Amino acid sequence: MEVKIKENERIDDLEYKGLKIIQDKNGFCFGIDSVLLSDFSKEIKNESLVLDLGTGTGILSILLSKKTKLKKIYGVEIQEEVADMASRSVKLNDLQEKVEILNENIKNLKNIFQKNTFDAIVTNPPYKKINSGKINENEKKLISRHEISANLSDFLNVSFDMLKDKGCLYMVHRPERLADIICELRENKLEPKIIRLVYSNIEAEPKLVLIKAIKNANKFLKVEKPLFIYNKDGTYTDEILKIYNKNND
Amino acid sequence: MEVKIKENERIDDLEYKGLKIIQDKNGFCFGIDSVLLSDFSKEIKNESLVLDLGTGTGILSILLSKKTKLKKIYGVEIQEEVADMASRSVKLNDLQEKVEILNENIKNLKNIFQKNTFDAIVTNPPYKKINSGKINENEKKLISRHEISANLSDFLNVSFDMLKDKGCLYMVHRPERLADIICELRENKLEPKIIRLVYSNIEAEPKLVLIKAIKNANKFLKVEKPLFIYNKDGTYTDEILKIYNKNND
Repeated sequence: MEVKIKENERIDDLEYKGLKIIQDKNGFCFGIDSVLLSDFSKEIKNESLVLDLGTGTGILSILLSKKTKLKKIYGVEIQEEVADMASRSVKLNDLQEKVEILNENIKNLKNIFQKNTFDAIVTNPPYKKINSGKINENEKKLISRHEISANLSDFLNVSFDMLKDKGCLYMVHRPERLADIICELRENKLEPKIIRLVYSNIEAEPKLVLIKAIKNANKFLKVEKPLFIYNKDGTYTDEILKIYNKNND
Repeated sequence: MEVKIKENERIDDLEYKGLKIIQDKNGFCFGIDSVLLSDFSKEIKNESLVLDLGTGTGILSILLSKKTKLKKIYGVEIQEEVADMASRSVKLNDLQEKVEILNENIKNLKNIFQKNTFDAIVTNPPYKKINSGKINENEKKLISRHEISANLSDFLNVSFDMLKDKGCLYMVHRPERLADIICELRENKLEPKIIRLVYSNIEAEPKLVLIKAIKNANKFLKVEKPLFIYNKDGTYTDEILKIYNKNND
């Protein structure tokens, strides 16, 4: 489908089953975190109802609509312009039946959906607390990166409300927030079940953490084998190549 | 110093500055976890007063008395026979001035020491919850491995009471308990500051986790680079060789 592209935007190829995405050249562009999270959550069951909290460009919703056999995924984005861009990406890929972008604050979802509605939730939330890290002057990047409109506790609170009993939450975040994440998950009766740390290489500190939590589950955590992005010689590891080459499935 | 060795015991060489340790052939023998924890906590400052909760054979207290310039370390062990064996290991190494073994339940420490007394605490606590895992028929192994006399919450409760403000707790545990550990640490105002996961090799799930927490500290967690025990060819990694070869310091 033909869609309008603004002057400040560009179309990028997702290199997965022909999917494309519109991004703001000056805004927050998707990164490896979204791609890794889409792979981490690709176990989502057939016919699932899924929520993507803070979808941004829509990358995660768009990838998951093709990587899984979900019934429908709602991508929620508070920023009007960003949500509009994500909606156009959905049209660009002819995914309107599977993906719907909602321009909402996640805290309003309880007024839109009934509680205990979703089988799974995916989220790549803002990583930084307010008053931490460099503040980016571009407001769109600011809201995507900092907990301005909603903080971690809000994301998990909403996740608990929206998930069915034993529903799954998949999240990507920064390792320095791991203690916050684990404690806030438990406070919201979302039990951390799987953690996977993502390292640039075998000599580096982890850059990202992938977490799966289950609503009202019993306590047992599995920390998975490490995920390395680069080999020693700077080339991508086989696992990363496999994740990025899913178009060859 | 000459010490008595019982029939069921043997003397092992710690391969570090000539240190030796007495172990019960049928009991819980020290493993790589204690050695890694002694390395992880070797930053303990000069003249520190240190507590080793659940010392077992005394391995950690004995190693740290030589790896650091601590003032004194108290190794607390609830099992009378095991504590007696640890005491004899202390004498065997002529470390009576630096290391004292206390045959006590850690919950009694508040009756022995004043609150806020220690600069650092090290602990390799029982890993398994009661009713989890195979139960070992040998009771000495049972108490060392399972949370029979004291559980994680007790260990952290005592740690908070015994540590000075901003005092450091160093712990080794199993990754499957990571969520419990992080939540219980925070509940006891011991803020997790450093986590390091120990993997057999780059293809494996982590076997151990090393954790440093600081009493009453602010929230910021550093997840360190992974610690690998074996190379792909099954030989020890350089880091492990370095940790084990500290006698060459």
